[in-house]
Amino acid sequence: MGKRTIVYEKPIAIRSWATVAGRKEGRGKLAQYYDFILEHNQFGEKSWERAEQKMQQYALELALEKANLTASQLDYFLGGDLLNQIIATSYTARAANIPYFGLYGACSSLAEGFILGSCLLDGGFGQRTAVCTSSHHDAAERQLRYPTEMGVQRTLTAQWTVTGSGAYILEQGQGAWQVTKAVPGKIVDRGISNSSDMGSAMAAAAVDTIASFLQDTGGLNDLDYIVTGDLGKIGYEICKKQLQERGYDVAGRYFDCGMQIYHEEDQDVHAGGSGCGCSAVVLGTKYLPLLKKQGRGKLLLVGTGALLSPLTVQQGETIPGIAHGILVEYKGEGVL
Amino acid sequence: MGKRTIVYEKPIAIRSWATVAGRKEGRGKLAQYYDFILEHNQFGEKSWERAEQKMQQYALELALEKANLTASQLDYFLGGDLLNQIIATSYTARAANIPYFGLYGACSSLAEGFILGSCLLDGGFGQRTAVCTSSHHDAAERQLRYPTEMGVQRTLTAQWTVTGSGAYILEQGQGAWQVTKAVPGKIVDRGISNSSDMGSAMAAAAVDTIASFLQDTGGLNDLDYIVTGDLGKIGYEICKKQLQERGYDVAGRYFDCGMQIYHEEDQDVHAGGSGCGCSAVVLGTKYLPLLKKQGRGKLLLVGTGALLSPLTVQQGETIPGIAHGILVEYKGEGVL
Repeated sequence: MGKRTIVYEKPIAIRSWATVAGRKEGRGKLAQYYDFILEHNQFGEKSWERAEQKMQQYALELALEKANLTASQLDYFLGGDLLNQIIATSYTARAANIPYFGLYGACSSLAEGFILGSCLLDGGFGQRTAVCTSSHHDAAERQLRYPTEMGVQRTLTAQWTVTGSGAYILEQGQGAWQVTKAVPGKIVDRGISNSSDMGSAMAAAAVDTIASFLQDTGGLNDLDYIVTGDLGKIGYEICKKQLQERGYDVAGRYFDCGMQIYHEEDQDVHAGGSGCGCSAVVLGTKYLPLLKKQGRGKLLLVGTGALLSPLTVQQGETIPGIAHGILVEYKGEGVL
Repeated sequence: MGKRTIVYEKPIAIRSWATVAGRKEGRGKLAQYYDFILEHNQFGEKSWERAEQKMQQYALELALEKANLTASQLDYFLGGDLLNQIIATSYTARAANIPYFGLYGACSSLAEGFILGSCLLDGGFGQRTAVCTSSHHDAAERQLRYPTEMGVQRTLTAQWTVTGSGAYILEQGQGAWQVTKAVPGKIVDRGISNSSDMGSAMAAAAVDTIASFLQDTGGLNDLDYIVTGDLGKIGYEICKKQLQERGYDVAGRYFDCGMQIYHEEDQDVHAGGSGCGCSAVVLGTKYLPLLKKQGRGKLLLVGTGALLSPLTVQQGETIPGIAHGILVEYKGEGVL
């Protein structure tokens, strides 16, 4: 086995999870599967940033409740978001009051957290960890692009930042869903500097990570699903084509979380969903249940991140992409 | 031993390191110990942000050179900085072209990277990792407070963000300097919302981390140095006093990196140095050499971070503090 793919020796279970989604997401394709849907994106708070923090905190509380745990039974909290200095996650960690590792992998942060969290459990540094991420459309828009209230016209390559949060509880031991392998991402930069075309900026990183995993583990045969985090329609096509060029025909088993959330015909999100909350809500509402429905299966979740700084983009720099992969296997012995 | 302190089972060596410092820092108390001093803080680049990235990349190259390694011999790159979306670190990771975990712990990011990097090595997930952080006064000022060119008058509680970067190479195996224990930080928020008084915002988190470590490991007797990252004069006094109140008389062995960089009498930095680069340059130029000079010793480095988002501070939120601790022991069998 190649060097880049990590193989966890101990069993690591996804013990529980919860998802919280915004109003628009709550009217989309996964409407009936979210644990909680916001009636209004401000969630009763005076700012979108506060709403995002409340959303992430609520997701964590729900995930803990499902597992019949309290925060004090967690050894670590890992997470990140898109806000300046990942403040939504830091405030959630403050409420949880447990050892906290703040991560920044942009929209790949969930998968980054899964990798590092699983390493902490497999390495014997703890029994249980939470991994949480969130994004909020209105907060992200003004963080990364233009003042949200300006309502700048969106290009067709633009993606819609998902208002949503997912919290996952990982623990040492057997469970229905197991994290068994991981492939950490490298920065791949294809010279894109358009902050409204993130799919193109991230696709090559996804290809690099998926190809590394397939090379290390013996190819596609053993894999039921490959799911990228938020490449959207444009990035998805680039990724599929480039994998094909490398000899991997992924048709029929490759999907993108950014294409699963909104109704294409009437929700007007152009290239699809994106954000730290995108893969965080789709993994829990669609793919983990799908594995269970099938009774078995292996899923490679590839969290994709555009490490976009609005400042350096204004300075003419390009956008580095990264993609972190984790393999989830359904074993059929539920603890949930 | 208590639960929060991590004890590494395998030997983990700090194989090499390098520090790069800005012009002002290069005229300070540690002037003669930096590996490289910038003649001008723009470092030949067209922006301070680019200069910061170049500085971090240079620190990594120097550290690799000292260890007679190339970047491709590293399994991981962990790091962070203060810029929006930690872009200086991401660009450095792009140049290094190795698996990358972006971290955000504000000024505690170096210690956070040491903890997670050591966990990756101790857990057997790799042989060797780089941990890098940087900060740049002029870039940080406009990131976190006011446009740098405005030259806003600084309060006496303000600290001066260090222009500097440190890169450390950790590897599995025996070495002169070993990382043997760690204590991950929890968020502690004392309700401070003044972004010009970071020392006060972080001090309680440092106390919490240090006290946890001392409680877990049997007290002060075994410890030669406790060094906080960047509390500055004000935070240092609060931390010392609060430790005393908890029964730990740390006088004579407690120091703060933020008080080691500048000449107090004529460099006009008010409460001291701060930033991701602060502990990163002081650890390598002062404390690791000091341990060697003594021939033995144990140092608890406590990276302190104010998870300050300028946006949420404007919204009236308070600043969460965090402190990550690592124990470095000098064993006297140098590989450097």
